[in-house]
Amino acid sequence: MPNIFNPRDLSFQLYEVLSTSALCQSTRYQEHSREVFDQMLDVVERLAEEKFQPHAAKVDVHEPEFVDGKVHIIPEVKAALDAFIEAGLPAAAFDEAQGGMQLPYVICQAMAFIFGAANVSTSAYPLLSAGAANLLSAYGSEQQQCLYLKPLLEGRYFGTMCLSETQAGSSLADIKTKAELQSDGSYLISGNKMWISGGEHDMSENIVHLVLAKIPGGPAGVKGISLFIVPKYLVNDDGSLGERNDVSLAGINHKMGFRGTVNTVLHFGEHTGARGYLVGESGKGLNYMFHMMNEARIGVGLGATSLAYTGYLHALAYAKERHQGREVTAKDPMSPMVPIIEHSDVKRMLLQQKAYAEGGLALGLYCAYLVDEQRIAQQDGVSDGVDQATALLDILTPIAKSWPSEYGLQANDLAIQVHGGYGYTREYPVERLYRDNRLNPIHEGTKGIQGLDLLGRKVTQHQGASAKALYAAMSATLQQAGSDQLKPYAEQLNSAIESLFKTTQSMQQQVPEKGVSAYLANATLYLDVFGHLVVAWMWLRQAIVAEQALSNEKTGAADEGFYRGKLQTCHYFYSYELPGIQPQLTLLAQTDTTCMDFDPQWF
Amino acid sequence: MPNIFNPRDLSFQLYEVLSTSALCQSTRYQEHSREVFDQMLDVVERLAEEKFQPHAAKVDVHEPEFVDGKVHIIPEVKAALDAFIEAGLPAAAFDEAQGGMQLPYVICQAMAFIFGAANVSTSAYPLLSAGAANLLSAYGSEQQQCLYLKPLLEGRYFGTMCLSETQAGSSLADIKTKAELQSDGSYLISGNKMWISGGEHDMSENIVHLVLAKIPGGPAGVKGISLFIVPKYLVNDDGSLGERNDVSLAGINHKMGFRGTVNTVLHFGEHTGARGYLVGESGKGLNYMFHMMNEARIGVGLGATSLAYTGYLHALAYAKERHQGREVTAKDPMSPMVPIIEHSDVKRMLLQQKAYAEGGLALGLYCAYLVDEQRIAQQDGVSDGVDQATALLDILTPIAKSWPSEYGLQANDLAIQVHGGYGYTREYPVERLYRDNRLNPIHEGTKGIQGLDLLGRKVTQHQGASAKALYAAMSATLQQAGSDQLKPYAEQLNSAIESLFKTTQSMQQQVPEKGVSAYLANATLYLDVFGHLVVAWMWLRQAIVAEQALSNEKTGAADEGFYRGKLQTCHYFYSYELPGIQPQLTLLAQTDTTCMDFDPQWF
Repeated sequence: MPNIFNPRDLSFQLYEVLSTSALCQSTRYQEHSREVFDQMLDVVERLAEEKFQPHAAKVDVHEPEFVDGKVHIIPEVKAALDAFIEAGLPAAAFDEAQGGMQLPYVICQAMAFIFGAANVSTSAYPLLSAGAANLLSAYGSEQQQCLYLKPLLEGRYFGTMCLSETQAGSSLADIKTKAELQSDGSYLISGNKMWISGGEHDMSENIVHLVLAKIPGGPAGVKGISLFIVPKYLVNDDGSLGERNDVSLAGINHKMGFRGTVNTVLHFGEHTGARGYLVGESGKGLNYMFHMMNEARIGVGLGATSLAYTGYLHALAYAKERHQGREVTAKDPMSPMVPIIEHSDVKRMLLQQKAYAEGGLALGLYCAYLVDEQRIAQQDGVSDGVDQATALLDILTPIAKSWPSEYGLQANDLAIQVHGGYGYTREYPVERLYRDNRLNPIHEGTKGIQGLDLLGRKVTQHQGASAKALYAAMSATLQQAGSDQLKPYAEQLNSAIESLFKTTQSMQQQVPEKGVSAYLANATLYLDVFGHLVVAWMWLRQAIVAEQALSNEKTGAADEGFYRGKLQTCHYFYSYELPGIQPQLTLLAQTDTTCMDFDPQWF
Repeated sequence: MPNIFNPRDLSFQLYEVLSTSALCQSTRYQEHSREVFDQMLDVVERLAEEKFQPHAAKVDVHEPEFVDGKVHIIPEVKAALDAFIEAGLPAAAFDEAQGGMQLPYVICQAMAFIFGAANVSTSAYPLLSAGAANLLSAYGSEQQQCLYLKPLLEGRYFGTMCLSETQAGSSLADIKTKAELQSDGSYLISGNKMWISGGEHDMSENIVHLVLAKIPGGPAGVKGISLFIVPKYLVNDDGSLGERNDVSLAGINHKMGFRGTVNTVLHFGEHTGARGYLVGESGKGLNYMFHMMNEARIGVGLGATSLAYTGYLHALAYAKERHQGREVTAKDPMSPMVPIIEHSDVKRMLLQQKAYAEGGLALGLYCAYLVDEQRIAQQDGVSDGVDQATALLDILTPIAKSWPSEYGLQANDLAIQVHGGYGYTREYPVERLYRDNRLNPIHEGTKGIQGLDLLGRKVTQHQGASAKALYAAMSATLQQAGSDQLKPYAEQLNSAIESLFKTTQSMQQQVPEKGVSAYLANATLYLDVFGHLVVAWMWLRQAIVAEQALSNEKTGAADEGFYRGKLQTCHYFYSYELPGIQPQLTLLAQTDTTCMDFDPQWF
């Protein structure tokens, strides 16, 4: 059962909507070409189909178990990861100088999207390792890179991110894990970490835990947080493995979904003391993490899109096959039943999923492409380019994380509904996708946190530089939508942008009178409105390309259907989705405090 | 962990918003009093806490298993059902003449609401049996009532409803199960039935399957469908059990939620032939089913509300206990963390749950109360009263079924979000509630089916009699909301009613030009809008009572908080929820065909 993704759409997004081929004109990516990218994507597609998807249901049922202090994971997971490693993929995004493939980030994210759609649980392990590798690549010393980054990129080591503790989830300032300096310059780490994905298993030679901890005597709150490497097995200077470090598995969390990714509670330093090594400067741990957070959050959003996308394709295939009922005007009970895709309401549910899944993909890849622009400009020393891409990424990240998490989940809900009673059973994949996707509005910063980030920080930071950069990018799209067919959408989007701008201004003007708490009280609604507006923009970008392609005589019949679908889905988004923001804008413009003012005693 | 329901709210709904005590003035309920009702509710609350809730999580994990042709169910389920039966509850809603308690339907539904909130899976068994008993009570012959209804009401037999087949879910007209007349007047039933809850187990002496089947030679489509009693064990004329009938368990469906309710595939007549007995007249099977459908659908909606309600209470308790973060303006990292209920966004999520759960409860009980009015009028021979209650029930049923199913699920989604990462684990109940509730938009008529029922039938039937009855009932509420505080809501609701009326008119006027298919294309949206409007009405009804109570000097401090909460939740609904219907009304008024016109090739 493939139905993992639509290669035609992925190539449309990468090469028609984005200019991924053009990236190869940069110094950074000059060794590459579209052919290389497509070969890589083909490899990934095959791996996803042959190694990842086939055990997605099995690992959900036979989830990792904690037996006699060890984690047991079904062998298909390691087999898939071995194939992933054999293809050199752990190093795909890293520089050649580090032994990597130096592929564009947008291509790497497209690959992650495919793996996520095939099997979100198994593909989490390399994503986590890549996150750890990223941090070490940016902030690790030369020796740390040699001892830990290199084997991570070779796939010999896996990595984790150890941030949360039971009493400190969203509130990382309140972590209690301690790091005490030893005479040899290392630290002894002690404390407990919660929600650690990939925290213990035997699928790699070693596990590199990146741990946030506080050095006693340091400042309170986030400024006292430092970042440490705490390997499962100590590593000797020659790279050989030493003795087991004092990191122990205290338990496994049993989640509703994402069951194949072992999620652990870890105890550090319960016995002899867990040896850790400071990364970069002390007190900068959270800064480092947040520097990587844009990419991590875009990754979460794209993962949510993966699940929405594959769910949509499963629902689409089912709707074509399943015969049930007749046209509402058909009176003859002996007439044959029609495939349910003929029913308007089923079409609506498919269209909504398509709008969310392909809109989410467009957004995720757009952000990934911005990371490439950032890297290219960085390498070429074009500081303007770096600023521009960074400004856009900053403001888009909370949206790229939260919008697909919220609406991708809704897409999965609709995929179940299209399947009727069958969709509610574990014999079909859609209920699993729905359970998996429910995590995404929670981890890597809840939806509420994303709203505060957007409204409390990103919209106003650097004198509104991010907001201005976004406005400029959107304006460029509006300019291109000049045809009779597209102009109404451009006008609608422009008017929505103006409404949001005025709303934001009105909210800001009320701060002196109503206070910052009131200003932020409906930040989640603001995020929602902003997200819909951004995805409407993504749909207009796609419609522009589709319209141009349709006017091109060379476009074949099969492609014509594809492009018409894009145009009509854009129409759907502007008719059924975008208008929904208006009532929320009204509430926001008033700085409504109905919720904030609700006395807890009244519940 | 109680958190099952809020007794203060239930008594508010029953005795302050509805006039449940006044029902005892009728001939039908004259033997009862509020004291009796409250005693019954106390019994139910204790049973729910002691017998139903404690194994809700266990039966989800240890779901019924199919071993050697038998169904194994954990013993706690039977223990709970035995206690239920011992309390005489299977007969609670039935007439004294039938050996029942003749309790008002609204009280029975309140009891079902409590059991559903405590353990939706286990409480499904008696609900299904009650459905079967209802049918036999209305349409069974005297002998059938003696042989099957009596033991159902005594709790010795359980019942099922066998409608769907693998190829006929929403499209019941297409069932294939056959019933062939035998010389003794009985029928031989052959065919397969799908999605049969409670289809096989050893918890009762016998199982009474009520089966839809077609008598060969009859008319095609729904007019050829008849209803049959097919017992698991044949019953001799003296009521003793005979041999096993030819009904066999072909398999168990494994669902995402509702795992404790065994859901089966049954084969009828595979071997010697399954003996069945015609209920009522041939060809009227679906009519009979639909006669009971109002109550069944109201029951599904109330079940969805149960899950929303208990999820809300769990989230509320968690939000009061869990400390995380600080006020957004607090700068001192050493200041203590606050309970998360202090955060505006958490309050918003709780308020939204409260609005959905308590709004859903108000709607479900209102409909149940209408059933009582219908029964009272029927017994007293007041045909006007019957017509009035029936008209209202007809139009409200698709909403009472679908609105809580949709928004109750959203409430459960928010309950998870309030819990953060913990809510996503199986150590907390909210993820289970969410999985359970996902069934409700599917069974007993999907949301799409409810939309077609509302817009295609109920709104227009009998020259709009149902719509007029609803308008009259709403108008009465508007009249009562004359205070300065409530008038704005009344005006807002009135204007929404007018918009909906005009929209409906506009849609109907476009039928000659655009066709019936286009008219019905967005029926699901119409249902959604209509539902929000009805629940807004339910909130205004509650606000009127709350305002009156607050102006009463005798209202104590604890109650004052309760009533203020009601008023402010009404305010929330009119500020955050009701305005959301406007964009949908715009689409509807245009008979938008974006979805209908989407060519399947374009997906």
